[in-house]
Amino acid sequence: MPSLADTTRGRILFGGDYNPEQWPEETWAEDVRLMREAGVTTATVGVFSWARLEPVPGAREFGWLRRVLDLLHEGGIEVCLATPTASPPPWLGELHPGTLPVTAEGTRLHWGSRNQWCPSSADYRRHALALVEDLAAAFGRHPAVRMWHVNNEYGPVCHCEETAGRFRDWLRKRHGGLDALNEAWGTAFWSQQHSSWSTVGPPLAAPYLPNPAQVLDFRRFCSDVLLECFTAERDVLRRHSPDLPVTTNFMTLYPHVDCWAFAAEQDVVSLDAYPDPADPRAAVRAALGQDMTRSQAGGPWVQMEMAASAVNWRGVNRAKPVERLRLEALQAVARGADGLCFFQWRASRQGAEKFHSALLPHAGTDTPQHRAVRALGRELPLLAEVVGTEVHAEVAVVFDWPNWWALEQRGRPSDRVDLAPLALAWHGALWDAHLTADYVHPEADLTRYRLVVVPNLYLASDRAVENLVAHARRGGTLVAGFFTGVADDQDTIRPGGMDGRLRDLLGVHPLEWRPLDAPADLAGGGTADLWSEELRLAEGTEMIASFADGMPAATRHGRAHYLATLPEPAVLRRLLAGAADAAGVHPELPGLPDGVEAVRRGGLLFVLNHTAAPVHLPLSGPHRNLLTARDTAALQLAPHGAAVLRPM
Amino acid sequence: MPSLADTTRGRILFGGDYNPEQWPEETWAEDVRLMREAGVTTATVGVFSWARLEPVPGAREFGWLRRVLDLLHEGGIEVCLATPTASPPPWLGELHPGTLPVTAEGTRLHWGSRNQWCPSSADYRRHALALVEDLAAAFGRHPAVRMWHVNNEYGPVCHCEETAGRFRDWLRKRHGGLDALNEAWGTAFWSQQHSSWSTVGPPLAAPYLPNPAQVLDFRRFCSDVLLECFTAERDVLRRHSPDLPVTTNFMTLYPHVDCWAFAAEQDVVSLDAYPDPADPRAAVRAALGQDMTRSQAGGPWVQMEMAASAVNWRGVNRAKPVERLRLEALQAVARGADGLCFFQWRASRQGAEKFHSALLPHAGTDTPQHRAVRALGRELPLLAEVVGTEVHAEVAVVFDWPNWWALEQRGRPSDRVDLAPLALAWHGALWDAHLTADYVHPEADLTRYRLVVVPNLYLASDRAVENLVAHARRGGTLVAGFFTGVADDQDTIRPGGMDGRLRDLLGVHPLEWRPLDAPADLAGGGTADLWSEELRLAEGTEMIASFADGMPAATRHGRAHYLATLPEPAVLRRLLAGAADAAGVHPELPGLPDGVEAVRRGGLLFVLNHTAAPVHLPLSGPHRNLLTARDTAALQLAPHGAAVLRPM
Amino acid sequence: MPSLADTTRGRILFGGDYNPEQWPEETWAEDVRLMREAGVTTATVGVFSWARLEPVPGAREFGWLRRVLDLLHEGGIEVCLATPTASPPPWLGELHPGTLPVTAEGTRLHWGSRNQWCPSSADYRRHALALVEDLAAAFGRHPAVRMWHVNNEYGPVCHCEETAGRFRDWLRKRHGGLDALNEAWGTAFWSQQHSSWSTVGPPLAAPYLPNPAQVLDFRRFCSDVLLECFTAERDVLRRHSPDLPVTTNFMTLYPHVDCWAFAAEQDVVSLDAYPDPADPRAAVRAALGQDMTRSQAGGPWVQMEMAASAVNWRGVNRAKPVERLRLEALQAVARGADGLCFFQWRASRQGAEKFHSALLPHAGTDTPQHRAVRALGRELPLLAEVVGTEVHAEVAVVFDWPNWWALEQRGRPSDRVDLAPLALAWHGALWDAHLTADYVHPEADLTRYRLVVVPNLYLASDRAVENLVAHARRGGTLVAGFFTGVADDQDTIRPGGMDGRLRDLLGVHPLEWRPLDAPADLAGGGTADLWSEELRLAEGTEMIASFADGMPAATRHGRAHYLATLPEPAVLRRLLAGAADAAGVHPELPGLPDGVEAVRRGGLLFVLNHTAAPVHLPLSGPHRNLLTARDTAALQLAPHGAAVLRPM
Repeated sequence: MPSLADTTRGRILFGGDYNPEQWPEETWAEDVRLMREAGVTTATVGVFSWARLEPVPGAREFGWLRRVLDLLHEGGIEVCLATPTASPPPWLGELHPGTLPVTAEGTRLHWGSRNQWCPSSADYRRHALALVEDLAAAFGRHPAVRMWHVNNEYGPVCHCEETAGRFRDWLRKRHGGLDALNEAWGTAFWSQQHSSWSTVGPPLAAPYLPNPAQVLDFRRFCSDVLLECFTAERDVLRRHSPDLPVTTNFMTLYPHVDCWAFAAEQDVVSLDAYPDPADPRAAVRAALGQDMTRSQAGGPWVQMEMAASAVNWRGVNRAKPVERLRLEALQAVARGADGLCFFQWRASRQGAEKFHSALLPHAGTDTPQHRAVRALGRELPLLAEVVGTEVHAEVAVVFDWPNWWALEQRGRPSDRVDLAPLALAWHGALWDAHLTADYVHPEADLTRYRLVVVPNLYLASDRAVENLVAHARRGGTLVAGFFTGVADDQDTIRPGGMDGRLRDLLGVHPLEWRPLDAPADLAGGGTADLWSEELRLAEGTEMIASFADGMPAATRHGRAHYLATLPEPAVLRRLLAGAADAAGVHPELPGLPDGVEAVRRGGLLFVLNHTAAPVHLPLSGPHRNLLTARDTAALQLAPHGAAVLRPM
Repeated sequence: MPSLADTTRGRILFGGDYNPEQWPEETWAEDVRLMREAGVTTATVGVFSWARLEPVPGAREFGWLRRVLDLLHEGGIEVCLATPTASPPPWLGELHPGTLPVTAEGTRLHWGSRNQWCPSSADYRRHALALVEDLAAAFGRHPAVRMWHVNNEYGPVCHCEETAGRFRDWLRKRHGGLDALNEAWGTAFWSQQHSSWSTVGPPLAAPYLPNPAQVLDFRRFCSDVLLECFTAERDVLRRHSPDLPVTTNFMTLYPHVDCWAFAAEQDVVSLDAYPDPADPRAAVRAALGQDMTRSQAGGPWVQMEMAASAVNWRGVNRAKPVERLRLEALQAVARGADGLCFFQWRASRQGAEKFHSALLPHAGTDTPQHRAVRALGRELPLLAEVVGTEVHAEVAVVFDWPNWWALEQRGRPSDRVDLAPLALAWHGALWDAHLTADYVHPEADLTRYRLVVVPNLYLASDRAVENLVAHARRGGTLVAGFFTGVADDQDTIRPGGMDGRLRDLLGVHPLEWRPLDAPADLAGGGTADLWSEELRLAEGTEMIASFADGMPAATRHGRAHYLATLPEPAVLRRLLAGAADAAGVHPELPGLPDGVEAVRRGGLLFVLNHTAAPVHLPLSGPHRNLLTARDTAALQLAPHGAAVLRPM
Repeated sequence: MPSLADTTRGRILFGGDYNPEQWPEETWAEDVRLMREAGVTTATVGVFSWARLEPVPGAREFGWLRRVLDLLHEGGIEVCLATPTASPPPWLGELHPGTLPVTAEGTRLHWGSRNQWCPSSADYRRHALALVEDLAAAFGRHPAVRMWHVNNEYGPVCHCEETAGRFRDWLRKRHGGLDALNEAWGTAFWSQQHSSWSTVGPPLAAPYLPNPAQVLDFRRFCSDVLLECFTAERDVLRRHSPDLPVTTNFMTLYPHVDCWAFAAEQDVVSLDAYPDPADPRAAVRAALGQDMTRSQAGGPWVQMEMAASAVNWRGVNRAKPVERLRLEALQAVARGADGLCFFQWRASRQGAEKFHSALLPHAGTDTPQHRAVRALGRELPLLAEVVGTEVHAEVAVVFDWPNWWALEQRGRPSDRVDLAPLALAWHGALWDAHLTADYVHPEADLTRYRLVVVPNLYLASDRAVENLVAHARRGGTLVAGFFTGVADDQDTIRPGGMDGRLRDLLGVHPLEWRPLDAPADLAGGGTADLWSEELRLAEGTEMIASFADGMPAATRHGRAHYLATLPEPAVLRRLLAGAADAAGVHPELPGLPDGVEAVRRGGLLFVLNHTAAPVHLPLSGPHRNLLTARDTAALQLAPHGAAVLRPM
C-alpha cells in the first residue's frame, strides 16, 4: 500500500487548495510563480471541479486541468488531486431529482450551494464513479500528482425512499430478522413494533421523541453509507494509480462519520481544522484534533485545510494574528503533521467563501499576512528531519462515535451534557498538565498506555468494557468520567444502570443521576458542573473529591478513578495530573509555565509559547534549536515564540 | 353510572403504569412480588400496547395480556386497563397514510414516536374502535380489571383535508350559514371573506398573522373532535362493562383540550402531573393541578401519573428528593386524590423514556428511591378514612379554555401575558395566604363561594359576564384581573373595550392598555409587572393600590375588586387575603408560617411543611395524627414533614 | 403628470385608513360626523376590499363603495382610493393555487391572513388588473376621490416554477447568455455552473451557504417584479383618471423593494412609519424615514400610515404618550410631509389588528387619545403655508438597496454588521449634531451637497464610485464608513479588496478586515464597535482617531474621511459635525440643546423639543410662532413642546 511517506519524501508538505477554474488562465502562471516564492510544495486541485470537468452529462473537459497540472509540474509544485464528487453540477439534480437529499421533514434540498447529494442514490454513485474512473485514467499517472483527495468533508444525510431501502439492507445485515430488529430497537415501547420491513426506515418528522435506537442505527448507517461512497472511489483510484496514497479530509470533532472506521480505509489521514481565533482555548481544540487525527492515522498525517487568518462561517469571524498562524503550524507538526495545507491558495473574488482568508489575500502579497505565509514556507524545511517520526504519548483518551450518537439524543437526563465540550474539557486538563495523549477506540489495544482516560463512554460495548477491565488488570491506571458504561451498543440501559463489570472495577454504583443546571461548590474549593450522582461506594473505594454537601465528586478504587461530575479546569487538571504522576507519566519538561506546550516528536522537542510573556527555563543539557540553528542550554522563548530542540 | 368509589372501595389506590410487553415473561412474576412488597394496589396496563395486541391489521394477540392480568389478579394487584389508541402501530400509517397528522406547513408526521394519529381520520377511528371493542369484550369482565383508561393525554392536532371537512361540519353546526361564519370570524378584515364552504378550513401556513377567530374556532374544534374520539371509545367500553368507571388522563394547565368538557363525559377524572423539582414553586403548581382536577371531577379524583423522581423531557431533569416524593403524594390526597399512580412501575431499559424515573429504578430495590416508595405504600393505608370525602374550599377561581385560546394569539398587546403563569401567580398568592380554592367554569354555579377570583377572562361570554354580575349581586366578593371582559365568545372586542356590565360592576373603564416590558414600582413599596392601563374610575370606586406615578394598580367598587396589573407575589397575596378576609374566608389554621400548607378534607386536616425549618404550632384542641397514630395538642412538623390530624 | 399638489391644494391632509366594510352601514354616518369633528380631510378607502368588491370570481359589488364615497363626499371628506390587490379573496387561491406564494423550502402559503399572492403569477395579475380596471372605470372620476393608493406595502416573495420562469427572463435581459450568467454569479465556485437555463432559478433550500450573486440577483428581481405589478396597476388607473396622482406606501428601512426605483414610477411617494414608543431613539428613526421618503419624492410626500398610539405586532406594544403623537406629526411636516394619515380611523373589533390603536379608539371619543387627535386636527391648518415647500438640507446620505441585499448575506465577515442599524447610527449622529440630511442613490447627482456621507457602500457600482470621486474632485467633502467599495455590482470582490479609485480618494488600503464582537476602546476616550481593519495609510493621510492599541479608527485624506469602525454616538457625532463644519454646513440654530430638533422648511423653522426639560433660547430676531399665533424674540418650548417660527 502506498503511504504518506511516498508523498512527503522527506519534506513537510506546504500549500493548499488551488481552484484555478475560478480564475482566467493568465492568472495561473502568476499563481505558480507566487507559490514558488512562498515555498509552496503542494496544491490540492479539483475539489469542486465537477461542473467544469463534466459540464453536460457524459462530457469530459479535461484539457484545462491538464494544462494546470502541467504548469504546476513545470513550476515544481506537486498536486494532491481531488475527485470532485462533493458538489455535483446542477444538471445532475435536474436529471435525477433522487440524487438530491431530503430532510426528515420531507424538504428536498437543491443545488446552488454544495453537498446536494444523497449517499444512497445509485444515480449519484454511477455518475460520480464514472467521472472518477475517467479522471483517474487521465491523471493517475501525471507526474505532478502525488496523492488523491476523495470528495470533501463527508457528511450528507438523506431521508428519501432510496435511503430507506439501503437502510433496511444495512439493518438486515446488522440484526438479521425483524424480531431481532424489534428487540434491538425496543419497539415494545410506545407500540412501535414493525410487523413488516416495509415500515422500517430513517427517523422522519414525528409528533414527539423518536426511538433512540433507531436514531443511533441510522447514524451508524449514515456513516457506513458514506464510507461505502469513499471506498468505491478509492478502489477506482487504486486500480489506475496503485502507487498513489488516497485520503479524504476529516474535521475536528466532526459528528457525521465514524472517523475510526474511515481511517482504517485510508492510506493517508488528513484533517481540516479551524480553531476560532476568538477562543482563548483554541490551542487545546487544535491539539485535540491533531492528536485524534494522528491516532487515527497511526502515525504522521496531513493538515489538509487550515486558515491563514479568518474564516467566513462564524457569526463574527476574527482575524488570526500572524504569530498565531506560525504557532498553529508548528503545533500541527509537533503533533504529527507531515503536511500543512491551507484553504485556500488565492482568495476567491466570488462565491460563498469570498470572505475566507487565503495564503494570498485580496489585498495581495504586500501584506503582513502574506509575509507570514512566506516566512512559514522558509521555516518548515528547517524541520525536515521530523518527517515520518512518531509523537511520544503515554496517555490514551477513549473516544467513540456511536457513543456520541447515543449520548446526545433528545429525552436524556441533561441536554447540557454534550460530548465535544466534555472531550475538550478533559483534553484541556491534560494539555494544562503538559501531558501528550493519543486517542483510542474503546475496543483498541491499550497495552502501550500507562494511563487511559475516558471522558465519557455512556454507550460501552461488551468488548469495550472488557478492554478497560483488562487494562486495569494489567496494572494500568484508568480515569472514567460520569455516565459511563450506562448503555450497551444498542443503547439499552444495562441492568443496574451501569455495567456490573465497571461497577466492580471502579468500586461505585450510581443509584441516581442528578444533573446540575449550574456549577456547584466542591469541598475544599473549586466548583464542578453538569452532573452529580447519588453514588454507593464499594468497600475500598476512596472518596478523593466531594461536593460541599458531602456527595462524592471523585473516587478511587485501586488504580481506577471515577469522576461523578465535571470539575472546573484547575481541579480536573489536578486530578488527572495526580493520576498520571502515580502512573509514572510525566511532562516532557519539568517546570513548564502555564500555556507553554512541549511535545516530543521523534528526536525533537517542540516547545510552543501560547502566552504573551517571555519564557526562560534551564534545560538538562545542551540542545540545538532548529529554528534558529543555534545551540543553547536554556529554553528562551519570546511571547508567542517557539523552539524546536534537538539534544546534542 | 359507575364512579371512582367502585374502584377505590375504601382504599387509596397506589401503583402506576405497568408495561409488561417491554419485559420478558419471566420478569412478570418478580414484578408482582415486588409490587406487593411495595404496597401497590393498582397497575395501569396496556397504554401503549396496540402493536402487541394487533401486530398486523385485524390480528388479535390477547393471550399475553390475559396472562399478565391473571398474574396480577393472583397477586392481588388490581388493574386499570388502558385502550392503546394513543399510539397506533406502524402498519396503520402505512396502510392509511391519512391517519398520520399533518402540520400547518403541510409536513406529514410519521410513526417512530407516538401520537401519530389524526383525530378526524375515519380510518383511524374504525381501526381504534374495532380493537377497543374486542378488548372490552375480552377483558371487560376480567376480575383484575377495575377501571378503564382511555387513550393517553389527548392532544393530537391535524391540518389535513379530512380534518378540514370535519371542521366545516363543526362550523356549520356552530354558526349555521356562511354569512354567519363570515360575521363571526370578521372576514371583512383583510379580505378574508369566504364565498364558498370549500375555502373554509384550518389555519394553514400563511404570510402573516392568521385570523384570530378562525384560530379560536379551530382550537375549539380540535378539543371537540378529540372528545368525540374519547366518547366513542367510552361508549364501547360501557356496553361491555357497564360497571367499570372510565377515565382519561389530563395534564396540569394542558392547553390542548377543554378539560371542563372532557370531565363532564368521564366517570373518573384523572391527572398526570410533573412539577419540576427545580421549581421553588413546584408545590403551588401541584396544588393548582390538584384543585383544578378535583373541581372538574366534582369530588375525589385520581393522580394517574406522577414521577418518583426525575423526568426525561426537560432540558436538565432534576432528581426529586425522597422527602418531596412523600410530600407531593400527601398533598394530592389532601386536595382530593383517592389514587396515586406513577409513571411507571419499572424503569424502561429501552425507548425514549428510559431516563424517566420509576417506582423501581434501574439501580434496583436497594436504593433510597425505592425505599421511599415502599414507605409511601405503607403510609397510605393509614389515611383510608379520607377516601371519598370532600375538600373544604370557599374560594373559586375562574378558568376557561376558550379564553386561553383567544388570549394567547399572535398580534396582541403583549406576548408576555400568558394564562398559565398568570393562573400560577394568582394560585400562588392564595396558597401563600393559606386559602384553599376550587376552580370553576366561568358559567358555572357560584352560589357556594363567598369569594370568586378571576385571574384573567379576556374572552367572556355573555353568560359568564352575567354569572359574575349575579355573584356580586348576591353579596359575593369578586376580584378580577386585568384585560378581563374585553372580548365576546367569538373574540370580538366588546363596545368600549370592556363589557359594559363589567365596567359597571367593577366601577372602572380601561381607556388604553399599557403593557409593561419590565416590573414597575408601586406606590408604598413592591412592584407590579406585565400590564398597566389608563383607567377611568367611576364614582364610588376606590383606588386601593397605585403605581409610583399615580396610575391605578388596583381598585375596589363595593365588593368588586379590579387589578389593572400583576402585583408581585407578596402584594398580590395581601390583596387577595384582604378581600378574602373581608368576605369571611379564612385559613384552616391561624398563624401558619410561610410555606406550610393546611387543607381540610373530610374530617381531617392535612398539614404539610414545604420548608426546611421545623414547625411548632399550638392547636385549638387535642388531635390525633394519623401518620404517627399519636394524639397531640400541638402541631409538630419536622422539616419537610407532614401531619394528618383528626380532631378528637 | 398629476402631483401631490393636486390633492393637497394648500392643505395638510389629515386622516387615515377607513374600512367601512368592517362596520354596519349605520355606523358610516357616525364616522363621517366624527371625522368632521376631528378635522379629518382625507380617508383612505378600500385597501383590503377585494373580497367585498368581488365576492365570487368576476362579480362586481361596487354599490356599497359608491354609497361610502358619496357619504364621505357629502361630509366634505376626500378619499384616497385603494386598489385592493394586496389581499386576494380565498377563492383566488382555490381557483388558481399557483397564485399562492411558495417558500424556499417548498411550503405553499395559504389564505387566511393577507399578502398570499405570487408577484409572478399571470393568474394573479389578470384577476387583479381586471378588478382595478373596473374600479378605475367606476370611481376614477368620483368627486370624492383625490388620489390612488395601489396595493399595500409591496413585499411578497415566491419561489415557485412560474417565478423561476420570470426570473430566467429577467436574468437573460440583465446578463445576456448563460456564459455571462455563470461569469456574473461565479458559478465556477463549488461546481455551480449552469449548462442549461432550465437549472437556473430562485435560491431554494440547500445544504449550505447559497450563491451570493444568485441571492442578490433574485432580490433585485423580486423588487423589479413587484414594481412591474405596481406600474401595471398604475397604467390602468392613469388611463381612467389621468388627473389623479398615484402612490403606493413604503415602510421605513424596508428591505423588500428598491424604493428609489419605485419612487421614480410614482406620482406621490408615501410612507408607513411606526417608531416604537419604547425606543429612546424613536425620533431618529422617524427622521430617517421622513428624510429618505422626502428624498425619494424629490419634494413633499405623504405619511400614509402612522399609529395614534400602540401597534399590535411587537412583543410588547407600548402605548404612545399623547404629547409624542403631536411631536411625531409636526416632525413629519417639518421634514416634508404634506399629509398625515393614520392606520386607522376606527379601531377594528375583529381580525388580526384589533389591538392596533386608531384615531377613534375602542374606548371612544371621551378619551385623552381621541382628544389629542382632535387637537392635532385643529393645529395642522395653522401650518398650511408650509404645503408644497422644500426642506433645507446640505448634507446627503448615500443609501442603496442592492448594497443592502449584498451586504447582509450569510457567510460574511460579521453578522453583527447590518445596514439598518448602521444607517440609524449615522443618521442619529447627524440628528444629534442638528444637521438635516437628504438621502441619495449612490449614482445620483450630488452637486447640490457640500457634504456626502456613506454609512456603508460595500457594493459600489463603477458609476457610484465615479460619482463619489467626482464629488470630491469638485471640492465636496466625503465621509465613508468601513467596508465600503469592496464589491462590484455583481458582488464580486474588487481587486485589492477595495476599489482602487476609492483607495486613492480616501488614502487608505484595508489589508485585512477585523470585525469586533464587542466594543473596543478608542485612544482619548470613547469606544467603537462592529469593525476594525488593518489599514495601510497613503502618504498625506492623517489618522484622526485611533483605537487604544494604535490601530487607525478614522482617517482624513484631504476632504475625504474614512471610518474604519463604528464609533459610539458621541464620537461619531463629533466626527461628522467636524467634517460638516469644515465643509461649511451648520445647524439651523446655534446653541441648540441635545434632543431639540430644528428643521427649516420653506420659510418656516420647526423646532421640536424631544426632551422632558423646557427650552429657552434667544433668537437672532423677531419671529412669529404659527402654533401660538404670537410674536417672540426667543424660543420658548415646554417639555415635549414645539414651535413653528416665521421670521418677521
